[in-house]
Amino acid sequence: MIRLVPLDGIPEVRPGDDLAELIAAAASRGGIGLEDADVLVVTQKVVSKAEGRVVELASVEPGERAREWAQRWGKDPRQVELVLRESAEVVRMADGGLIISRTRHGLVCANAGVDVSNAGGGDVATLLPENPDSSARALRDRLRELVGSRPAVVVSDSFGRPWRLGIVNVAIGTAGLEPLLDLRGEPDAQGRPMRATVIAIADELAAAAELASGKVDQRPVVVVRGYPYRPAAGPDRGAAALVMPREQDLFP
Amino acid sequence: MIRLVPLDGIPEVRPGDDLAELIAAAASRGGIGLEDADVLVVTQKVVSKAEGRVVELASVEPGERAREWAQRWGKDPRQVELVLRESAEVVRMADGGLIISRTRHGLVCANAGVDVSNAGGGDVATLLPENPDSSARALRDRLRELVGSRPAVVVSDSFGRPWRLGIVNVAIGTAGLEPLLDLRGEPDAQGRPMRATVIAIADELAAAAELASGKVDQRPVVVVRGYPYRPAAGPDRGAAALVMPREQDLFP
Repeated sequence: MIRLVPLDGIPEVRPGDDLAELIAAAASRGGIGLEDADVLVVTQKVVSKAEGRVVELASVEPGERAREWAQRWGKDPRQVELVLRESAEVVRMADGGLIISRTRHGLVCANAGVDVSNAGGGDVATLLPENPDSSARALRDRLRELVGSRPAVVVSDSFGRPWRLGIVNVAIGTAGLEPLLDLRGEPDAQGRPMRATVIAIADELAAAAELASGKVDQRPVVVVRGYPYRPAAGPDRGAAALVMPREQDLFP
Repeated sequence: MIRLVPLDGIPEVRPGDDLAELIAAAASRGGIGLEDADVLVVTQKVVSKAEGRVVELASVEPGERAREWAQRWGKDPRQVELVLRESAEVVRMADGGLIISRTRHGLVCANAGVDVSNAGGGDVATLLPENPDSSARALRDRLRELVGSRPAVVVSDSFGRPWRLGIVNVAIGTAGLEPLLDLRGEPDAQGRPMRATVIAIADELAAAAELASGKVDQRPVVVVRGYPYRPAAGPDRGAAALVMPREQDLFP
């Protein structure tokens, strides 16, 4: 059996906060002793905030391309400017103003992961972490310092998909686990070798955790307990291993 | 907290089997009383088998297009023939012989969901259910007859994705729950209305269940307990509601 246990009481995260400390404190208050065998799924938003990946829109000077696109679709040109800056490549610019980007990490997602919200004192944009795999590793290492155990870590974000409605959470950063479970050649239930089975378990962990996080994202950290993940073998490539190489992609 | 509880001891399913009866018996043996509040996630393969959606390859007469493609890529022409028959539209035919299809249900997936295995007496192909939403509803109704409760049902299958490596389980059929959680306009943690948040919770349920099903698919049914799903409101559209209308799709 697997348990999905959300951590209660993580406060609004601010730039410079020690996220691992907030997580350790919340786990402790909840009577949850974190274990090496656990997987901690943490939403990108709190990771980005702790890392200071936030930009006040008032400080952004939009370029010509951003101004044109924003005017055409009634968007905020400063937000469009940030999306373009965060994009290694624009995959689609869609009617309605949506931009589908490929980020520097190779992630294909809406608006390059730039998320604008009003935090009281004006509009603020949250950007994806510079390197979500490094974020996951740092969080894992810091947790070990604080609580003595070293659960695997998944940094999650919500992505849309072609052909299907709705968003689902996927893994944009991982530490300590193999994000792909490669079963090719292993025997199936009837003892026959399996053919083309490589399961993106990090994405499934992210999706599972979302179900437990509560509707309004007040619980940005979920402990997945009881899933027998495979520890990262050799150098930990992180969620970068989930990015399909361009030459393999049928939808480039 | 959410629990993902796999059911042990479901035997190899054969055409004509009463799948609900097999599930009810396995739950009973495991001491799991199924409840209305549970979500039962069932893999497509056992649903298809119970419904007799299996074809002996020896009985298939390949057409010219199938023969050509099979010869070019060293595939079995009878298997290619079934894939083409199950495809409403071929989205990509890729180097290596992989065919990405749109099925009659609007699902975009590899080989139109046709899965070939050797069941001892020769190669057998399993096709997707004719109507996975009807399958889910029938299973749910039959369970009520057998055990008195009526959990929501998700029929899952493993799909690849553009841009990301590995497969993840998604929902191809549902009964009793809203597969999309539409939070647009509801207040977020700070009391501000959320903008574009529609979560494909049926896909997340399918992904979560896969983690608990075990590596070699010996446990095709997983009970998700503790997730507060929203009951289907009005006529139950099922997982058909997850299929993106063509005119909205940026990757048609």
